[in-house]
Amino acid sequence: MTVGELGEVGLIAALRAIFDRDRGDVEVGNGDDGLVWVPGQRRVVATIDSVVEGVDWLPERTPAAAIGFRAAAVTLSDLAAMGARPRLLLLALELPLDAPLEPVLAAARGLAALADVCGAAVAGGDVGFSNGPARWTTTGLGDLAGPALTRATAQVGDIVWLIGTVGAAALGLALLRAGPAPTDDGWRLNAVAHHLWPLPQVSAGVGLQRRGGGRWACIDISDGLGLDASRLAAASGVALDLEIPLPLWLGPVGASECEAAGLDWRAACAAGGDDYALLLAAPPGARVDRIVRAAGAAAQRIGRVRPGPAGQVALRVGGRPCEPTGWRHGGAP
Amino acid sequence: MTVGELGEVGLIAALRAIFDRDRGDVEVGNGDDGLVWVPGQRRVVATIDSVVEGVDWLPERTPAAAIGFRAAAVTLSDLAAMGARPRLLLLALELPLDAPLEPVLAAARGLAALADVCGAAVAGGDVGFSNGPARWTTTGLGDLAGPALTRATAQVGDIVWLIGTVGAAALGLALLRAGPAPTDDGWRLNAVAHHLWPLPQVSAGVGLQRRGGGRWACIDISDGLGLDASRLAAASGVALDLEIPLPLWLGPVGASECEAAGLDWRAACAAGGDDYALLLAAPPGARVDRIVRAAGAAAQRIGRVRPGPAGQVALRVGGRPCEPTGWRHGGAP
Repeated sequence: MTVGELGEVGLIAALRAIFDRDRGDVEVGNGDDGLVWVPGQRRVVATIDSVVEGVDWLPERTPAAAIGFRAAAVTLSDLAAMGARPRLLLLALELPLDAPLEPVLAAARGLAALADVCGAAVAGGDVGFSNGPARWTTTGLGDLAGPALTRATAQVGDIVWLIGTVGAAALGLALLRAGPAPTDDGWRLNAVAHHLWPLPQVSAGVGLQRRGGGRWACIDISDGLGLDASRLAAASGVALDLEIPLPLWLGPVGASECEAAGLDWRAACAAGGDDYALLLAAPPGARVDRIVRAAGAAAQRIGRVRPGPAGQVALRVGGRPCEPTGWRHGGAP
Repeated sequence: MTVGELGEVGLIAALRAIFDRDRGDVEVGNGDDGLVWVPGQRRVVATIDSVVEGVDWLPERTPAAAIGFRAAAVTLSDLAAMGARPRLLLLALELPLDAPLEPVLAAARGLAALADVCGAAVAGGDVGFSNGPARWTTTGLGDLAGPALTRATAQVGDIVWLIGTVGAAALGLALLRAGPAPTDDGWRLNAVAHHLWPLPQVSAGVGLQRRGGGRWACIDISDGLGLDASRLAAASGVALDLEIPLPLWLGPVGASECEAAGLDWRAACAAGGDDYALLLAAPPGARVDRIVRAAGAAAQRIGRVRPGPAGQVALRVGGRPCEPTGWRHGGAP
């Protein structure tokens, strides 16, 4: 059997069976957005993630700075989902020997720019050359003011919130695949910007941790709403009912244009990845919208936690049921 | 200009110019074996490194478990050089879709085995598929009992110590390139074992930190004695005189056999990489040999710190001057 036949989920399970050990100072181990380590008095969150040429970005349509920006975003979003304040990014960079220098430096500036915005220093790293595609692997380290937001604490009756938006990045990628980046139209430009310059919900995550750390459940939506929602539900042993309205950023005009062009905006919302929104479950009465607004972001109620088979997600988008399937990065949703 | 034309050293310098920022809680930033971060009362060391198929190991001659073992060793050795106690490894694993599963799991077991020996848990990670070579990137997190051992604190008059050995891994790689792994001869078997199963000097590093943290200078020898010695000398603003005798593990028989076979054992000692020894500079009177012996390893005096152009290294191996050049991983020294 090859690793491709087993698939990512099966391979991760097989690796976890090899690696899992009890360690006293690891408070949250494998299986969440990051691990929580308590080396002294303070909790530290650590995460690692990669972006790969041809898999996570379209080489011919992506500004170089957006590559580094994305490399920072994927890891900062994992820190955000745990409620950690980002402090450090380490970079392991692998490049083909014939990669032109200037775009690599532009990408590094994109990485530094988003790290700066999010309060993280880029320090420590490793550079290597190989004959494979360019790969930017980042480790994120953040600190926590208290217990982390994990995937495992959603309870029946909780309200489910979406912080940020879904579907925009997937439609942006589809538009870029079809032609050069649009410059003249509201929803198209918005969608492409969401794909190229994803902004992780760092401030919202920190704010939510301060109120709900250890109780509210959170995951970042990087692999599609349906798949990531089912991960949160599985980790918490609950089921979810979710309903996404027509997204504000798309509007009726964009929705009808999508339909005319054969772009399935409902599938993009249900299964499109790379939006780096957060999905949160919190008890009724938690003022999630107020906390998120204070962090300069927007939260909307999109559903409820109910009893049911662990991991089950019933998802409706724009009034119609949608399959809560996942997303292949760089592929069509 | 391509990144290959600029080279690794130039690219790292260009990236550092982009990333370098002052951060109050980063005690040691870019340019050492790891970074030192102080999130609360305790110091944390973080490092990141990768091993790549075809670059860091010979695919057809390397047992699968040795691949994961090496992936752990490169990062644990960086922690050792800072004097940190390893606590966590995060793994970002990238594989071709058609990679057979069983060797990947064997490699993961090799990684877990060395992590266990060194006291580190493997927790947190990321798995991805691409059309490039297999790559195992590990981030190491360790804690420090006090100030780190850095490269920058060697002083004129210090004694230079070698903890572990040099040259064995490079000769082992040369033997593996020439044919199947030997099973019958002392020095050959020893050399191949050094290449396949490098043991980082973790206990020695922790012991040395407790006595010399913040004053003794240390670097891990992963890119060759000459190159890594010049890095320590450059960071400390000093010059080094080093003299390596005929290594005990090689002995006169091995040395004469090398010469008969055209294997240059002096070059292997001067510039061969992947031994994961430590190079340490400490004041005369420091009982380095006793500390290292208590950690179950061996230290030998190999030189002295002298005034001179920063980074200059005068190196003699087996009684003859050798060029202190570096090492291309997986390449001939």
